[in-house]
Amino acid sequence: MKYGFAKRVNHMKSSAVRDILKVVNQGNVISFAGGLPDEKLFPVQEVRCAFDKALSEEPKVLQYGETEGIPGLREKLSERMEAKGISRYPENILVTSGSQQAIDLFARVMFNPGDIILTENPTYLAALQVFQSYEVNIVPVDSDEEGMTQVDLEKKIQQLKPKCIYIVPTYSNPEGKMWSLERRKQLLRLAEKYHTIVFEDDPYGDIQFDESENVPPLAAMDDNKYVVYTSTFSKTVVPAMRTGWITGPYQIIRMMAQAKQATDLHTNSLSQHALIALMEEFDLDEHIRTLRHAYKERMLVMKDIFDKADDLKIQYTEPKGGMFFWVSMPEEVNTTALLNEAVSNGVAFVPGTPFYVNQPAQHTMRLNFTNAEPDMIEEGMKRLIDVMKNRRGLDETK
Amino acid sequence: MKYGFAKRVNHMKSSAVRDILKVVNQGNVISFAGGLPDEKLFPVQEVRCAFDKALSEEPKVLQYGETEGIPGLREKLSERMEAKGISRYPENILVTSGSQQAIDLFARVMFNPGDIILTENPTYLAALQVFQSYEVNIVPVDSDEEGMTQVDLEKKIQQLKPKCIYIVPTYSNPEGKMWSLERRKQLLRLAEKYHTIVFEDDPYGDIQFDESENVPPLAAMDDNKYVVYTSTFSKTVVPAMRTGWITGPYQIIRMMAQAKQATDLHTNSLSQHALIALMEEFDLDEHIRTLRHAYKERMLVMKDIFDKADDLKIQYTEPKGGMFFWVSMPEEVNTTALLNEAVSNGVAFVPGTPFYVNQPAQHTMRLNFTNAEPDMIEEGMKRLIDVMKNRRGLDETK
Repeated sequence: MKYGFAKRVNHMKSSAVRDILKVVNQGNVISFAGGLPDEKLFPVQEVRCAFDKALSEEPKVLQYGETEGIPGLREKLSERMEAKGISRYPENILVTSGSQQAIDLFARVMFNPGDIILTENPTYLAALQVFQSYEVNIVPVDSDEEGMTQVDLEKKIQQLKPKCIYIVPTYSNPEGKMWSLERRKQLLRLAEKYHTIVFEDDPYGDIQFDESENVPPLAAMDDNKYVVYTSTFSKTVVPAMRTGWITGPYQIIRMMAQAKQATDLHTNSLSQHALIALMEEFDLDEHIRTLRHAYKERMLVMKDIFDKADDLKIQYTEPKGGMFFWVSMPEEVNTTALLNEAVSNGVAFVPGTPFYVNQPAQHTMRLNFTNAEPDMIEEGMKRLIDVMKNRRGLDETK
Repeated sequence: MKYGFAKRVNHMKSSAVRDILKVVNQGNVISFAGGLPDEKLFPVQEVRCAFDKALSEEPKVLQYGETEGIPGLREKLSERMEAKGISRYPENILVTSGSQQAIDLFARVMFNPGDIILTENPTYLAALQVFQSYEVNIVPVDSDEEGMTQVDLEKKIQQLKPKCIYIVPTYSNPEGKMWSLERRKQLLRLAEKYHTIVFEDDPYGDIQFDESENVPPLAAMDDNKYVVYTSTFSKTVVPAMRTGWITGPYQIIRMMAQAKQATDLHTNSLSQHALIALMEEFDLDEHIRTLRHAYKERMLVMKDIFDKADDLKIQYTEPKGGMFFWVSMPEEVNTTALLNEAVSNGVAFVPGTPFYVNQPAQHTMRLNFTNAEPDMIEEGMKRLIDVMKNRRGLDETK
């Protein structure tokens, strides 16, 4: 039988990253493809104690919970954001099933078909997927290594009257980019001038390699009027618990809570209680420092190998945090074609193409450096460099 | 600042049930309002052991998981459904964040604005909310105590060419109704004849008071062509873990998985691993028998009190399972007005009105009998009967 689907499914594509992951997980491939934290660094025993503590309390922790999130967790989130300079009352926070759901619920309450959304290019693949499923028009803004450029941004805001500007300004996915303070301020000034909502997606902000770096999130510079800010415990605690949050103007958060009620009633409340217990019994910030240190070391292993292979003529900017290296190969290289060779040679990455709204740079790729341990990174990079060199050789003999 | 929301938010209303619950939870009110299982019957120690076991395995249980659900859980679900006569491969099962998300994802991939959905009337409030948010037209079908009546159903299928027929045929919410075998077969015949999808929402099927009753789910009589079937662990294990599932034709389940990927990546996978451990270490069916027994006893306490108050001229059908009594008072009574008096008198229920697609019977109400223990049910019913009697007195002196 043929089933009549909704029109919007024409805009739904399976994520290339996840499809690759499925193949890669089956073999003996060292994968730099997924955006996975390292499970060996998970605080497993602490999570175990946290669940044990949560389950030693009232059986009520296993009952239906509030759509907005467990009040105790929203208080803790309010405190943690305050420490980053983001002052928001617990009432302005909605707990979500990962920050992915925060993006989806925001789109659900804000976007009509045909609305304009401004983004970086490339940008977070799964945000593009969400936006496309709401049948909006995504328009990229010219950007350089410091963030969106002001002239193109203002021109597009004036001409297109976008519903929202979506950005990942801190250790971005896929580019590992850090927006400068000046560009953050410029964007905020334009948001205020033209009354435009900014969606600040910040899953990686805590994975910061230089502890002295002190560029605040945009939300910290906004009076809770224009910036909607989301983050998650997926990178700092564990992904499996699917717990993120979003904060912003009360009207928007309230409307998103109503949408969430119809979507899944509420986020797993046992996990929320366990996260409260975890933060009470365990020094999460110390754990985050451990992650920063470990991931920085891995990033440097990867960087070092690239630096030594300078005959490959690849380009990258050293990431100051987060989970990704964004690499440009010489323009004649097609990284999607290269991926097949790489997988045959026991290493995987994500080609840059799917991260682009349009005009993809086919010679780009994203490499994750957090999932594999340093010796595996060395081995995987050795395999990758071999493939890159062979490819270069092929290109040159053409 | 005024924020420009999407058009679809005009169709989003906060659930009356949840809004009432918020007030009720604060006071000394005995609530028959929520659809809550009794937390005193939760298998807390077993859940605790299950998490402990899951967390003693590989740290991988805390990593990102498959969008479709953990394979081991889908296998267990396939086996459990097989025991109900529903033969479905694990590949045809999608694990969801509660069955609420199954409804939402189904609507998301199937419904265009203006599509026609046939439902019972009254029916599950939060399904109506989801459907309305997709801007469809919901059309009720004439029903009696055995289910939808065939003449009206066939007429409406022929005239309106609905995209889907949504039903809660087993111990329904709010009516506590059990569809007869004959009506189930009739509906299936019509679905086949007119190639119409049936969405069978079955959260309560396991809460069955007469163990000899043997009316199969519609999905058990369908060759996985027309029936999409959803259920949940919320009533049989605990609600907090937000784990449900949906099964149906592979094309539909596959499309829903793609939608889910953009919505929340995957359902809390630690909870999924814990559910596998729970079912391995613990006799879930024995626990379900305990619940059936306890909830039947409570239903009988409520029924007995209604039976003794026959001067109130209320009508109801004794529920054969599930969690709800559906009560009709004399037509001149408005139960929404009565609710205020009831809450003042220390007892709460849900007025019937919000469960209706249209033409609400304002003299109806839904009473939950699973959350309170028998002595509290007695006390709550005493308070409710007092309010009903006073109201009757007021009506008569008018």
